[in-house]
Amino acid sequence: MKAARYYDRGDIRIEDIAEPTVQPGTVGIDVAYCGICGTDLHEYLDGPIFVPPAGQPHPVSGESAPVTLGHEMSGVVYAVGEGVEDLKPGDRVVVEPYILRPEVDTGPDNSAYHLSPDMNFIGLAGHGGGLAEKIVVERRWVHPVGDIPLDEAALIEPLSVAYHAFERSGAKAGDFALVGGAGPIGLLTCAVLKAMDVEVAVTELSRLRRQKALDAGVADHVIDPAVSDVAAEVRRLTDGRGADVAFEATSVNVVLDALFDAVRPGAVITVISIWGKPASLDMQKLVLKEVDLRGTIAYVNSHPKTIELVREGRVDLKPFITRTIGLDALVSEGFDTLIHHNETAVKVLVDPRS
Amino acid sequence: MKAARYYDRGDIRIEDIAEPTVQPGTVGIDVAYCGICGTDLHEYLDGPIFVPPAGQPHPVSGESAPVTLGHEMSGVVYAVGEGVEDLKPGDRVVVEPYILRPEVDTGPDNSAYHLSPDMNFIGLAGHGGGLAEKIVVERRWVHPVGDIPLDEAALIEPLSVAYHAFERSGAKAGDFALVGGAGPIGLLTCAVLKAMDVEVAVTELSRLRRQKALDAGVADHVIDPAVSDVAAEVRRLTDGRGADVAFEATSVNVVLDALFDAVRPGAVITVISIWGKPASLDMQKLVLKEVDLRGTIAYVNSHPKTIELVREGRVDLKPFITRTIGLDALVSEGFDTLIHHNETAVKVLVDPRS
Repeated sequence: MKAARYYDRGDIRIEDIAEPTVQPGTVGIDVAYCGICGTDLHEYLDGPIFVPPAGQPHPVSGESAPVTLGHEMSGVVYAVGEGVEDLKPGDRVVVEPYILRPEVDTGPDNSAYHLSPDMNFIGLAGHGGGLAEKIVVERRWVHPVGDIPLDEAALIEPLSVAYHAFERSGAKAGDFALVGGAGPIGLLTCAVLKAMDVEVAVTELSRLRRQKALDAGVADHVIDPAVSDVAAEVRRLTDGRGADVAFEATSVNVVLDALFDAVRPGAVITVISIWGKPASLDMQKLVLKEVDLRGTIAYVNSHPKTIELVREGRVDLKPFITRTIGLDALVSEGFDTLIHHNETAVKVLVDPRS
Repeated sequence: MKAARYYDRGDIRIEDIAEPTVQPGTVGIDVAYCGICGTDLHEYLDGPIFVPPAGQPHPVSGESAPVTLGHEMSGVVYAVGEGVEDLKPGDRVVVEPYILRPEVDTGPDNSAYHLSPDMNFIGLAGHGGGLAEKIVVERRWVHPVGDIPLDEAALIEPLSVAYHAFERSGAKAGDFALVGGAGPIGLLTCAVLKAMDVEVAVTELSRLRRQKALDAGVADHVIDPAVSDVAAEVRRLTDGRGADVAFEATSVNVVLDALFDAVRPGAVITVISIWGKPASLDMQKLVLKEVDLRGTIAYVNSHPKTIELVREGRVDLKPFITRTIGLDALVSEGFDTLIHHNETAVKVLVDPRS
């Protein structure tokens, strides 16, 4: 079958590889769509980061580069292994793409399996990937999506990142949230917040991205930090109070500073972005306003709740699908679109069968 | 009466001023002891910070320099104003030294009055101070201490800072806490944690301070960061897990970094210290370990609970009283001791009657 294989920085190849075999306890999936994630771009431009370099196998998967890429996938079950009773061929599914030590309790009562040692991801550190025609995944990581269209279902994974960030923040209905950055994760965070009846303002330099937030109906207010004082604008929108929660989705220090100024005392600021360098933090604002600065990574028991939000129509993922391409165009068109036209592109999907 | 008056940086004078008058709803207190706080030192060396400079009156107190200093006081009631029924002359009391806007709800159900706009402190921004023979305070801010000795009672205020930091951290019995710094607030934080059945390790460069933490019985483990890898030592003490909570009480960046390395995923790091410069923060550790970095300032509804801890004998304040001096020796002996002998000095008390 065709698969996108990551060899090294700048070296991704579309190759023919052997199909995976369905083992007991696993599910065979015909991949329908796989989104390109910012993480994939980072691996291509600056990696290997999550990918285990050639000769340094991941301690759980035992694999190293080359590995199949892609972790934002949807598809249709074509076979189930022995012992899998609750899924059948034809079911639409998505994958929660974890690679964890076998001893980690991944049950619904463990709210920290995503923080366990050696945690890594399918599609980055082995166990196949979504940028291939087929994948075989342990039953535990396969989530049925019912009648959600398969292209939208490919966005369940990044939406789960946003959902987990929302849970980490403690935001609740009636709160006022300020989101820093309207890139893919910022927009999806807005979408979850709106679904939860939180009032949402987004600060974003790009006019096109601000417009996207408005057009998608996920922001009540957009702020252009080039012309407005973000904190003053948020105070104006909140009768002088300040935002109850804020989300940092840019890894830009001036945005983090603006969030600290714009939140009320006792607020929570959740950091979703991956920072390549240390942040400079005004501790006086953290201390005197008793701010909570919280990190959030990936998701934990988030997929079923995220799928429910989409099935109930509380989150509409259609506005965030920019285009769909074939596997052969992954680098030339997919990565290129995201790197050079990232003001207008949100999510590029790959159909590995085409 | 005699009082220590703050005029400006480096200019504190012991003067004779008029006694305050007991008004309806207030309590007249003969000050027994008043501790010297790090904040007082900062005002003397680098201020005015909290003190409103001459000609710029505080919006609530209406006062500006010169003001009477001192906010860590204990004393005995000598008179109560009209309407005060539940205190009487002879009662031993301490003061929760807040200056707040009159419209702020300061009842026990408001957990954020300490974060209200224009918040400042008695003994810094007006309303008298504890470095004087007498003070008159609104009933709401006076807390009876029963039979706690008056010298120990003067430490209820900084102990309330530590208690509130403990509450902010969410630490619970059985947790493992790492405290960065064994200065006065670090030691009192250890004392509260021990009282709450938390296992306590302190990292501290000074041998004398480490010894003080051990002698006072408030630390189970002390770590010398000059000879030990703090994170490795904490992992050794926690079967590889890492600390559940940590407290930053130094405002030193390398200590903050060590706490991030020493905590387990999902931990809470509470910042109690006042930072004069921005911190450099490795956001990857915040994000990938899902750390909560929480600011904490002063106290809110903390004094009654703190007094109870001391009355029940769960916190012993005696080990933290270094010496007692008279008001005339405030600068020459008190500040001097704390500035130049701060390895051995914890809390210097002033007896304003002597």
